[in-house]
Amino acid sequence: MSKPTTPRTGIWLVGARGGLATTAIVGTLATTRGLCEAHGMFTETQDADGIGVPPLDSLVFGGHEIRSGSLWDAALEIYRETGVLRHDFLLELRDDIDAVDENIRPGTVLASGQRITSFADDVVEVANGREAVARIRADLAAFRERHDLDAIIVANVSSTEPSIEPSEATHDLAAFEAALEQPDCGGLRASSLYTYAALQEGCPFVNFTPSPAALVPALRDLADSRGLPYMGNDGKTGETLVKSALAPMFRYRNLNVMSWQGYNLLGDRDGEVLADPENRESKVRSKDEVIPGILGYPVHTHVGIDYVPSLHDQKTAWDFIHFRGFLDVKMSLQFIWQGIDSILAAPVLLDLVRFAELARRRGESGSMTHLASYFKSPLDTPEHDLHYQFHALIDYVRACRDEARTSGEAKKPSTTKRRP
Amino acid sequence: MSKPTTPRTGIWLVGARGGLATTAIVGTLATTRGLCEAHGMFTETQDADGIGVPPLDSLVFGGHEIRSGSLWDAALEIYRETGVLRHDFLLELRDDIDAVDENIRPGTVLASGQRITSFADDVVEVANGREAVARIRADLAAFRERHDLDAIIVANVSSTEPSIEPSEATHDLAAFEAALEQPDCGGLRASSLYTYAALQEGCPFVNFTPSPAALVPALRDLADSRGLPYMGNDGKTGETLVKSALAPMFRYRNLNVMSWQGYNLLGDRDGEVLADPENRESKVRSKDEVIPGILGYPVHTHVGIDYVPSLHDQKTAWDFIHFRGFLDVKMSLQFIWQGIDSILAAPVLLDLVRFAELARRRGESGSMTHLASYFKSPLDTPEHDLHYQFHALIDYVRACRDEARTSGEAKKPSTTKRRP
Amino acid sequence: MSKPTTPRTGIWLVGARGGLATTAIVGTLATTRGLCEAHGMFTETQDADGIGVPPLDSLVFGGHEIRSGSLWDAALEIYRETGVLRHDFLLELRDDIDAVDENIRPGTVLASGQRITSFADDVVEVANGREAVARIRADLAAFRERHDLDAIIVANVSSTEPSIEPSEATHDLAAFEAALEQPDCGGLRASSLYTYAALQEGCPFVNFTPSPAALVPALRDLADSRGLPYMGNDGKTGETLVKSALAPMFRYRNLNVMSWQGYNLLGDRDGEVLADPENRESKVRSKDEVIPGILGYPVHTHVGIDYVPSLHDQKTAWDFIHFRGFLDVKMSLQFIWQGIDSILAAPVLLDLVRFAELARRRGESGSMTHLASYFKSPLDTPEHDLHYQFHALIDYVRACRDEARTSGEAKKPSTTKRRP
Amino acid sequence: MSKPTTPRTGIWLVGARGGLATTAIVGTLATTRGLCEAHGMFTETQDADGIGVPPLDSLVFGGHEIRSGSLWDAALEIYRETGVLRHDFLLELRDDIDAVDENIRPGTVLASGQRITSFADDVVEVANGREAVARIRADLAAFRERHDLDAIIVANVSSTEPSIEPSEATHDLAAFEAALEQPDCGGLRASSLYTYAALQEGCPFVNFTPSPAALVPALRDLADSRGLPYMGNDGKTGETLVKSALAPMFRYRNLNVMSWQGYNLLGDRDGEVLADPENRESKVRSKDEVIPGILGYPVHTHVGIDYVPSLHDQKTAWDFIHFRGFLDVKMSLQFIWQGIDSILAAPVLLDLVRFAELARRRGESGSMTHLASYFKSPLDTPEHDLHYQFHALIDYVRACRDEARTSGEAKKPSTTKRRP
Repeated sequence: MSKPTTPRTGIWLVGARGGLATTAIVGTLATTRGLCEAHGMFTETQDADGIGVPPLDSLVFGGHEIRSGSLWDAALEIYRETGVLRHDFLLELRDDIDAVDENIRPGTVLASGQRITSFADDVVEVANGREAVARIRADLAAFRERHDLDAIIVANVSSTEPSIEPSEATHDLAAFEAALEQPDCGGLRASSLYTYAALQEGCPFVNFTPSPAALVPALRDLADSRGLPYMGNDGKTGETLVKSALAPMFRYRNLNVMSWQGYNLLGDRDGEVLADPENRESKVRSKDEVIPGILGYPVHTHVGIDYVPSLHDQKTAWDFIHFRGFLDVKMSLQFIWQGIDSILAAPVLLDLVRFAELARRRGESGSMTHLASYFKSPLDTPEHDLHYQFHALIDYVRACRDEARTSGEAKKPSTTKRRP
Repeated sequence: MSKPTTPRTGIWLVGARGGLATTAIVGTLATTRGLCEAHGMFTETQDADGIGVPPLDSLVFGGHEIRSGSLWDAALEIYRETGVLRHDFLLELRDDIDAVDENIRPGTVLASGQRITSFADDVVEVANGREAVARIRADLAAFRERHDLDAIIVANVSSTEPSIEPSEATHDLAAFEAALEQPDCGGLRASSLYTYAALQEGCPFVNFTPSPAALVPALRDLADSRGLPYMGNDGKTGETLVKSALAPMFRYRNLNVMSWQGYNLLGDRDGEVLADPENRESKVRSKDEVIPGILGYPVHTHVGIDYVPSLHDQKTAWDFIHFRGFLDVKMSLQFIWQGIDSILAAPVLLDLVRFAELARRRGESGSMTHLASYFKSPLDTPEHDLHYQFHALIDYVRACRDEARTSGEAKKPSTTKRRP
Repeated sequence: MSKPTTPRTGIWLVGARGGLATTAIVGTLATTRGLCEAHGMFTETQDADGIGVPPLDSLVFGGHEIRSGSLWDAALEIYRETGVLRHDFLLELRDDIDAVDENIRPGTVLASGQRITSFADDVVEVANGREAVARIRADLAAFRERHDLDAIIVANVSSTEPSIEPSEATHDLAAFEAALEQPDCGGLRASSLYTYAALQEGCPFVNFTPSPAALVPALRDLADSRGLPYMGNDGKTGETLVKSALAPMFRYRNLNVMSWQGYNLLGDRDGEVLADPENRESKVRSKDEVIPGILGYPVHTHVGIDYVPSLHDQKTAWDFIHFRGFLDVKMSLQFIWQGIDSILAAPVLLDLVRFAELARRRGESGSMTHLASYFKSPLDTPEHDLHYQFHALIDYVRACRDEARTSGEAKKPSTTKRRP
Repeated sequence: MSKPTTPRTGIWLVGARGGLATTAIVGTLATTRGLCEAHGMFTETQDADGIGVPPLDSLVFGGHEIRSGSLWDAALEIYRETGVLRHDFLLELRDDIDAVDENIRPGTVLASGQRITSFADDVVEVANGREAVARIRADLAAFRERHDLDAIIVANVSSTEPSIEPSEATHDLAAFEAALEQPDCGGLRASSLYTYAALQEGCPFVNFTPSPAALVPALRDLADSRGLPYMGNDGKTGETLVKSALAPMFRYRNLNVMSWQGYNLLGDRDGEVLADPENRESKVRSKDEVIPGILGYPVHTHVGIDYVPSLHDQKTAWDFIHFRGFLDVKMSLQFIWQGIDSILAAPVLLDLVRFAELARRRGESGSMTHLASYFKSPLDTPEHDLHYQFHALIDYVRACRDEARTSGEAKKPSTTKRRP
């Protein structure tokens, strides 16, 4: 018996029947079946050709979910609400969707906060964090086994959690592990448990959410000691993406931005979770640091997130930018962004897990700062300017391609950030 | 008698009482008097510190104009129409404005096209291009003499001319000079005469307009042979600036732009001139090449320019960008740009003439491609991506600063483009 | 065997597999099946309760079409392009859709102009207008017979034709009938033939398109002599609707509108037809008379219609309104209208044919000016103010309801306009 | 000695050096001097011709103010901030402006709330409400005397106060007067004192602000018993005006509005006051009742008011309207309103005080419901539809004109609302 020539990569999604995960799974199936183009993924462009990320059709999906119901129902609900998962595609992909559903396991809501817990109706009851971690690890191991996977990348795509208070448990691995013994995990959050389990199973980790608990210092130390790559936080997919593309223009021209007001309207579960001030805080902080970060001076900014149920995830954002030019004359730029959050986020998620697998294969560990362009609050880099961030990605990609050409995959590019 | 320690630089503007020139002149006076901040000029930022451009208060303005009236009246008219030149500032600057007016001379409309000629009421009657050139050169020489100028930079800020047909005269200097003998200049345009005169007087040249006649190959050859720096075409100050800042974002994320529709409303003399299809052609072509140039594939684009008299130069532009992402789902981005053209263009013009003088002092000649970010159709570079363009400028600036620190101004930066 | 208690009303659509007709048919089926709410139709509100329009489920659809293919395919194409006809609905309604398709007959393109003829691939070859009319009348008679219809309302929902030159044939019925004998119909257009045939068959007529040929004076005389109600022209469903709702506000407040610029982007067959200047002329004229008509003074207006294929019929319109207030200060209002043309037009069409049948039952004839609010160029009224127009409709509806309550349907409301 | 033929009408403004009052005063001066057109005032249109409102040049301005400084400085500050009071106009009107300033007296902040009191630096110290009222009445009497005024109209144009709790003092005149004896006015607010004093001096009263304390039931009873006309609350001048013009369109077409989100950005003192939640409450409530009131069903609405200092009173508002049509398809309309609050409000204020004087001359008393179109929360009418409101005004105006023609001013129009 010979192994298949293309190694198969597992993609384990925490929040596996949420809008983003469902869209990523269905979209991957539709794209590999040729039902649609491969738009949205940088990894599918000529610019990223030949660098060695795993092909789309080598990805196997699974994950954890805290709500009952099937992946098929989740997909159908998206069709009904916004139509972005086409009904004719779904009918054609039904068997494949059901097959993925068999890889989805009940998750944990230990320490997720009131709002998220109120959604959950399919969770594993556990006595403490250690038990929860054990279940998660067992699920990952079974997934690897069942599908004969070369590797598993774990990505957190669940709802935004409340903030986490810094403590010994968040900063020291031994204290972290001690906290797992407590019924309330000693101030840790559910996302901390998933990351811990993933790393202990040897899986690279991507935090697509703003939830800060997923990558506390103790967990980053664990990743380093295990030699695993990881990155976060908070996928940059919509209004903030546009902001970080536009703001540099004002700097180039010495146009003084007096006010940058941003209003985000959205109506899906994400919007409902963010309607809770406790959960919104993580998000707004993440969105609000971009403009002053790029311009280099304090700006009167406002980031509003309002829940408009009729929109579902058809995000509509209005930004009003008031600036001063020559002779102190005031002028303005407004933009209106009408994007489907899941449609924008899903291919970014796919880019990220594919880059994470590439990093793993290349033996890189630590924070993957070359992926900063994908995040609202990228780790280990103060740079918010989308263009500098992207040029860094291009440098990385070129280095990968050069090495792939010369020596297989022997050397690592010098631009990759590694924590000491 | 000792010369002043700071050398004085003449700025000669073709179209000296137009909205842009008037704004640049009044704005420079107001800024050096401390009436307003120095916004809008990159040369006034920390990023450009210590590179050796001439200080604002060392600039002396003059120029040619084909319409009668005073600079004071031109300034007052701008106050009345849009208020951007403040009435209280004007009252305070009246003497200085009148002093500049004494440096303004009647221009020529030889071969300017019907539309522009219809505005002219203060022109020098000449028998042919050679006579026109002689008058222009005499005006420049007298300006230099009167103000004891170290150098003069000539910039074309007049109305957009009709296109020019390629011919021997546009490509060969001898043929060009022969054409000057003809009463209609043999197909050349007024802007060709100004550039020729400027170069013959040893002046660096900036073509801020889209008028292609200003920098035909024959004239670029002349600049090279005289060792003079120059750059064009068409200042990038408004809607196109935003376009070139935003378009790369779609490329980064592999978001497929299906349509990019842009509508520009404006109502000043510029708008009136562009209402003439003959003149508009140069402009639209210049604006329309940006998007496909950045994205690398053909896009359904439209660039509309409509004359709305009530707006004067308070340009309002609406861009609608229709793009496709993951699963072929369509989404959109719109922006509304409300900028005052002259207020945006004037500081760019000042940046350009100051960089041109810096290049002259550094002994550079040929097209200043490091200034590409300032132009809609930059010479000698296919790059329309604002960020690549600006990063090139930053490289140049750093090289200048490094040299200024080490050796005074001995060496030239390696990034500067020189024609062979 | 007894006749059904509810009389059945035939709705005959010229352009029966076009986007508007297909949407109206599928939407009626879906609404009567309870798949969706009855939004969009004033006739389904409490305000119109009890006035005696035919119920939705008593309508039987048929029509003429010049393009081959099935109604099912037309519906599926709309699903694929914009998703507004839901795929799950279509699957459920398939039999009903196919049943309507059996009522659709090949149409005529006699004198339709070059652009429309280029689409046609399923037309009846005829020697002249008289033959075409005979075929149309036979189709109507067969429809009535087959479905045992109480009445048929004919509505023109085909593509916009080029303008028609006034002539004896357009103004005199005898000359009109003589022109029918000629192979090119003597300057008449296809829509003239449909209206003539409809009236001769005793059918009320609604011209939903701007095509002026459908209701030339000779045909209006015929309607009067036959005692038939009719109305047109050009359904007011999108940007113009908003305009006519907003413009009165400026009059109330004596805010002086200096410029009203409107830009319409659309990409369906309608947009393609309107990309032809010959066809666009009818449309733009119809849209452009609204603002000065409401405000009572000349305004700098612009109505742009641009073909953006990627939009299909997801019309996006941007209007920029520049106005002056107290102290001559300039201000602006902009609106962005994102409506689906067919989704907005279909319920208006259903309102109109139901009101036309009500008028027939009430014995009214001539132009139904109480329906002016539904048209961009309403016949026999100079009023463009949406609110006056709607208040007139409310007056009519009240009169109908009052009469229905007192005497069955004996009297006619005094507000109904009748031509002498 | 004979009295002048045109009687002079005093206009007493509470908040006399605020942005609105200053603009109204300067604008009236500029208009009567012929420096600008009379835009913005319905009373200056043909529609309002011949009804007998006092001519602009018969108005004499005075008022109360709690901040120190001169009217000239207030006008100059507006010029500096937004330019809407032109500097050249101000220079020409300086003497007239200074003359009005002599009619401005220190006001009272008794019970105005913390935020407003923090602005005040020029107030009369009084022991209780009775003393404050006595001072206000004395100021009014002196104003009448000094300028030989036929009548005085008092209008409240001061900053929005916090809400007022219903109590015996707000509902019963005797209890009201008893409360005046207390040092804190027993829960009344400063605006209550101004209204009380105005009515006791026989002055019609207009509450241009949302402050509910200005027209509590006890004060309305007093007006009725004194036979005086009055109206409020909260001038409808900007975003809400547009809302009330647009919302009816959705009702006409049975387009189901799911969400109406409105965001108001402004940066003047008004904005600063509204940044205080206590004061904002009155305003938002007033703005938020419009949409459900017009549509007749509950709608997910949001009214945001954000303080953006750089805008001063160049209000920018974005409204996003999400609606459903035929087949439940979702569509949207957005509008962007860029109006100068004071420039929109000043002519409305002038309309109102002129209509109030007309009502006084005609012997009308009670709430002037024919002026409902001018208010966000019109008294004694549930109607928010701008068009019904305006048609009622037109009816009133016609009745006035008819009577003026037939009998001088003998009869009163039947459409005028009077409280029993």
